Amino acid sequence: MLCRHYHLVGEGCDSAFTVDTSRITFGRGCLAEVGDRAKALGMKRVALFSDERMARLEHFQKVRQSLSAAGLDVAVYTDVHVEPTDQSFLEAARFASEARPDGYISLGGGSVIDTCKGANLYATYPADFLAYVNVPVGQGRAVPGPLKPHIACPTTSGTGSEVTGITIFDLLSLKAKTGIAALALRPTEALIDPDCTATLPSEVVAASGLDVLSHALESYTARPYVRRPAPARPSLRPMSQGANPWSDLGCREALRLMGLYLERGVADAQDHEAREQLMWAATLAGIAFGNAGVHAPHGMAYAVAGLVRDFHPSGYPQGEPLVPHGMSVIVNAPAVFRYTAEVSPERHLEAAEWLGADVRGAAPADAGEVLARKLIQIMRTVGMPNGLGGVGYTEADLIPLTEGAYPQQRLLQNAPREMSRPVLTELFRQALRYW
Amino acid sequence: MLCRHYHLVGEGCDSAFTVDTSRITFGRGCLAEVGDRAKALGMKRVALFSDERMARLEHFQKVRQSLSAAGLDVAVYTDVHVEPTDQSFLEAARFASEARPDGYISLGGGSVIDTCKGANLYATYPADFLAYVNVPVGQGRAVPGPLKPHIACPTTSGTGSEVTGITIFDLLSLKAKTGIAALALRPTEALIDPDCTATLPSEVVAASGLDVLSHALESYTARPYVRRPAPARPSLRPMSQGANPWSDLGCREALRLMGLYLERGVADAQDHEAREQLMWAATLAGIAFGNAGVHAPHGMAYAVAGLVRDFHPSGYPQGEPLVPHGMSVIVNAPAVFRYTAEVSPERHLEAAEWLGADVRGAAPADAGEVLARKLIQIMRTVGMPNGLGGVGYTEADLIPLTEGAYPQQRLLQNAPREMSRPVLTELFRQALRYW
Repeated sequence: MLCRHYHLVGEGCDSAFTVDTSRITFGRGCLAEVGDRAKALGMKRVALFSDERMARLEHFQKVRQSLSAAGLDVAVYTDVHVEPTDQSFLEAARFASEARPDGYISLGGGSVIDTCKGANLYATYPADFLAYVNVPVGQGRAVPGPLKPHIACPTTSGTGSEVTGITIFDLLSLKAKTGIAALALRPTEALIDPDCTATLPSEVVAASGLDVLSHALESYTARPYVRRPAPARPSLRPMSQGANPWSDLGCREALRLMGLYLERGVADAQDHEAREQLMWAATLAGIAFGNAGVHAPHGMAYAVAGLVRDFHPSGYPQGEPLVPHGMSVIVNAPAVFRYTAEVSPERHLEAAEWLGADVRGAAPADAGEVLARKLIQIMRTVGMPNGLGGVGYTEADLIPLTEGAYPQQRLLQNAPREMSRPVLTELFRQALRYW
Repeated sequence: MLCRHYHLVGEGCDSAFTVDTSRITFGRGCLAEVGDRAKALGMKRVALFSDERMARLEHFQKVRQSLSAAGLDVAVYTDVHVEPTDQSFLEAARFASEARPDGYISLGGGSVIDTCKGANLYATYPADFLAYVNVPVGQGRAVPGPLKPHIACPTTSGTGSEVTGITIFDLLSLKAKTGIAALALRPTEALIDPDCTATLPSEVVAASGLDVLSHALESYTARPYVRRPAPARPSLRPMSQGANPWSDLGCREALRLMGLYLERGVADAQDHEAREQLMWAATLAGIAFGNAGVHAPHGMAYAVAGLVRDFHPSGYPQGEPLVPHGMSVIVNAPAVFRYTAEVSPERHLEAAEWLGADVRGAAPADAGEVLARKLIQIMRTVGMPNGLGGVGYTEADLIPLTEGAYPQQRLLQNAPREMSRPVLTELFRQALRYW
């Protein structure tokens, strides 16, 4: 399977791939390790990032106690915005500049970890906000050097942010999601404690689980690294380098675990085995997409989340309208994989099989449909909305959605087939309704 | 499979595992990246470690040219001893102290990479030689801080040393192999170029391949991390933490690749696909055993290699007698796995199946025999000696072999069953002859 896919190096393309993985500790109760680990990294005064909901939970107390027991001085920041913005990043950076920590701890979902990355960056190397932001929205300037050490403690089984060098936020002036991608942003360590997921609402487990599932599917079907133009210098090889034998391994296991445990973990918060395995799948998929990159479903999701009008999903804070990240991704997925299957039908069929589909007798030409149907079955079972229509979009939104997604070239170029504007419009149209 | 194996945490045992993996670049021709990567790590003057045979090959020239093109100053050391000793380590450290490099490059097999680790350690933090050596032979003192950056470029598909914090050598005064294990020793980066293996003699591919195969088998069957006593502090969790879900992934893929490609890669040096896949399997098994640890076959191998009398294998330098490392490991393996299968028969059967054995109808009680037979068949096919007898040992050597292996407690305690002196003697007896 692996060898043939990577056998032929394209003209002028890359012929090697680079594996980068930070230190990860995984296990029930491991949040209690945070103080000792922070001290071992040389921290004396830490900035602890979290959000208001989390600050009321026992996990937060556990982290504070562990930091105290290790004799560390702690400055707490719980004003993290649920979908962070450039403004909320700058507020967090201002806090960090004043608190002068020599290390960072983040405890929460993707919003908390991403905000902590941003605060660490702008407090350590102050700059005009757009300086480090991905082109074409920002200037994409290189981070000047290493950041302060950061231990990320994810509390949802979805984000992957704890093992990647990516941070995502809304740029308010453009009403667009964008991000910063730099290896320096990757947390020094991740502490992944499955006990944190025991109290998550089912809806959050479902949406974040489908984000994980899509991380794995997108990384597995991404443009192979041997089809990506070689970098000017080897040390400039991007983190999103395309599918490769390393990311394939994590994707395969993550998809297998999703097939076995997602529906169980959503149905029953007391099913500790399922929720622990979902957390492990999230970790593996995070490592995989941190080294391969995601593509169209995530690129399109930026627009789906950014243009939300009045969708208020249950299980989430009921203030502002919101399409949860995993939901904004998965509504695009069946349409995208029907389109991309032509390039690597065997990979699309393998993925469907790992998720639990019966692929006996399926021909290569069936691959996209087999995978799409499996995804749709999972979406229905765990209560996802029926495509874009289910989160409030209509035919009239196809062009704005296309215009919102098209600038995400970093992701779209990692897709295995061309993602022009007309293609995106057609994919959004196919994604309006699935059943 | 994975969940049940790790479900029950033993009384006073560890409940989390830590994943540590250095940066790895893999791909044909990637040796040419070394100059740019060394420069990106901040190196200006590098010590290049290799051996005399390698220094005559084009790979060595490629590395030199890449370093020159990046404008780096280079001090070359090619006096690496094939099986390094405390004395050869100290000579290498003396060279490094005088050359005053700000970074290290190693190009060669395990002996070269291990010597480079030792030189970096003793030149950076001079100490009495036994200070850092593993107990009980040495004092096991902690390495005081980070070493100079080191890019390891393996030229055989076996060692794994490029991704581990372990260095092995002969302590001449005791006529015993021992080592130093510390995370600080792990190379900063590994550059793994499968082109290097195209010129390896078949015998070297066979022996190093069986070392890899045993890395994967031992890590997969090692005492699970939830059965290892918890460390005094989390940050003291050992690198050899026992089998865990992360190492399992790499083991499974490495065993599958070994089953598919080992015999092909040994039979035909022109089978580039097979040799490339063996190199990738070696990388995965190296990452796995760097995080799980090996056990009895490697612990026993120290004695098998250390007590050699007059064995001179073809394909290796013909000066001193030598049992190549992979050979000294694999001669123990069938006997060991017949003994350990009782503890986790399902894992022994899975491993046999991934290696290509027909396990249909096999009962748990057959697991050890099924795996041992598959190993023996592979050993015969690739020209390994017939057990310990094949490398010159007899019944009269069982006690000296036992006494040589027993001090390797770091490895023996990582085994899933007790490895007392009487058990070791019986395993060595079973290993005298297999066919």
